[in-house]
Amino acid sequence: MPATSRFLRACRSESVDRTPIWIMRQAGRYLPEYRALRERHSMLHLCRTPELACEVTMQPLRRFPLDAAILFSDLLIPIPALGCGFDIVEHRGPVLDRSVRSREDIDALKDPEDLRSLEFAFEAVRLVKAALAKEAPGTPLIGFTGAPFTVASYMIEGGPSRRFAETRKFMHRDPVGWDMLMGRLAALLSEYLVRQIDAGADAVQLFDSWVGVLSPGEYRRHVLEPTRRVIAAASARRVPVIHFGTMNGTLIEAMADAGGDVIGADWRMPLDTARRRCPGRAVQGNLDPIALFAPQEVLSRMIDDVIDQAGGLPGHIFNLGHGILPETPIENVRFLVEAVHDRTARDASKERG
Amino acid sequence: MPATSRFLRACRSESVDRTPIWIMRQAGRYLPEYRALRERHSMLHLCRTPELACEVTMQPLRRFPLDAAILFSDLLIPIPALGCGFDIVEHRGPVLDRSVRSREDIDALKDPEDLRSLEFAFEAVRLVKAALAKEAPGTPLIGFTGAPFTVASYMIEGGPSRRFAETRKFMHRDPVGWDMLMGRLAALLSEYLVRQIDAGADAVQLFDSWVGVLSPGEYRRHVLEPTRRVIAAASARRVPVIHFGTMNGTLIEAMADAGGDVIGADWRMPLDTARRRCPGRAVQGNLDPIALFAPQEVLSRMIDDVIDQAGGLPGHIFNLGHGILPETPIENVRFLVEAVHDRTARDASKERG
Repeated sequence: MPATSRFLRACRSESVDRTPIWIMRQAGRYLPEYRALRERHSMLHLCRTPELACEVTMQPLRRFPLDAAILFSDLLIPIPALGCGFDIVEHRGPVLDRSVRSREDIDALKDPEDLRSLEFAFEAVRLVKAALAKEAPGTPLIGFTGAPFTVASYMIEGGPSRRFAETRKFMHRDPVGWDMLMGRLAALLSEYLVRQIDAGADAVQLFDSWVGVLSPGEYRRHVLEPTRRVIAAASARRVPVIHFGTMNGTLIEAMADAGGDVIGADWRMPLDTARRRCPGRAVQGNLDPIALFAPQEVLSRMIDDVIDQAGGLPGHIFNLGHGILPETPIENVRFLVEAVHDRTARDASKERG
Repeated sequence: MPATSRFLRACRSESVDRTPIWIMRQAGRYLPEYRALRERHSMLHLCRTPELACEVTMQPLRRFPLDAAILFSDLLIPIPALGCGFDIVEHRGPVLDRSVRSREDIDALKDPEDLRSLEFAFEAVRLVKAALAKEAPGTPLIGFTGAPFTVASYMIEGGPSRRFAETRKFMHRDPVGWDMLMGRLAALLSEYLVRQIDAGADAVQLFDSWVGVLSPGEYRRHVLEPTRRVIAAASARRVPVIHFGTMNGTLIEAMADAGGDVIGADWRMPLDTARRRCPGRAVQGNLDPIALFAPQEVLSRMIDDVIDQAGGLPGHIFNLGHGILPETPIENVRFLVEAVHDRTARDASKERG
């Protein structure tokens, strides 16, 4: 069974010969070849130069037998299309040129004009598809975007935040203005995803990284509908959609109601719980990224726990429960990928008798 | 019905004439009289000077008809008894003199010697009890401590953290060393709570503020037992124990298994869910602190939602879902306290027919 079928079949909860695995932020700082590129180029320059984005995307595939590639990019890449410039500041994260906190700020957002300014991202998708065909035939490419809430939170806060106080104040103070902003973002992010799919992405992931600051009631009232619009736009192109959030222990059902063939769970949501609370969906996750720092006998047990909690191969995509950490030892990443494949290949052959 | 019965009866899920309310960090920066004191004294000086700690504790009681006082203090106040000094740095939080990351570091911890060095805290409890008897007769005093996990996380990280990476690495790398550290903390924090009770605290709250970074499995294996020891020590003195954590959407059952007459829910855990998942316990919470920045008609609706989700008066203590924010408008705090009392007094009289 080629890798492509394995990942895409798992997304559709179909039978597989072993559990597919990819790793959030698999193209990143834990790789020395990535750090070498970053010495010469800024993070944003890598994202915005198709050849470099392609090179970074391919780096982990050359080291590990991963079952999917994911486009190297950043959650905020599409927002300059609305006139919101930003930079990524070392040890701090994204810093926006201005923040969006009023109706006037929303009215001042630009029309994205068919995303011409984001053409570099779609070109990167095409280059990665060609590179995969040559270097790792059959490996699917995952495109991605931030979800409307998470992207809105950066635009309102003006950068990273711990409490997302301004975001939540805005939501409660002016729910109609909030809906207008979310509507603008839903339109932009839908189109951004669809264009990645049209360029060749085989699946997409929606990152609602900070949605866990909301209660289920807040999510259903203020966030579900624009999120559903983005997922529906991608689903209409008939590619699987992975819907991922963190700290979402109380709102995973509401997130599932917004859509997604696959629900991504962070490391705090046991996969058996995720399966029970999201019936009919595949699940993705959810090894604690910290496990990769543990001695290999501990790591091995934690990997087995995740596979056990997933309760069988169909409908499970192995991943970490959040992005891989920059200081992660590479030998443990190799150990992880091989352990998942070996263990689940044995499980699959046992099942076949 | 005097306030004392109202709060303590609610902790025991007994009938009340209205829902009691207190506010996490009710003695704090949103009060101008607190900010005035802080201009002259450091946070730690306020905590460590019984007369000043008493004065700060009493400030919110003079403004609002709150149903309980809570000792003004800090989660890290007891750790110098183990030889871990710290300072509280403006806009940054606590910074420890050293971090505890190895067996050697644990061996180097001091013996707390009957908590003589923390006598200021117990003296503050006695002064507050006397002040309450005079100024707000019948109002109970809540003592508190950080839970072993949350206190350990500061000791290991050396200060505030976002990902608690060092804490979780330690836990997985050396589970036996981890258990030793948690054992030392369970002993210290139990004694610290018991001495507050002996000095006059009528109830206690255990703050496991950062426990939500753990999965249920991690909590049960590494955290439940030392937490249970602290709660059991306080319960043995026959005062109600409130057990509070945040981001605990996946592990509230495990926290309830560690104990607590009352389970404190953050704003993301609807109280009907908390009640269902923690049968037989009272619940405390859980208005989003951000709600206090909303227009009063929105705030009013959000207060009603919390009361509705609590599903009736017995066994509900109204509170925020996390500490009150420093910029909170005072007039909305007054509105909140009055709204909770008025609405639930009407509910209670309806129930009586």
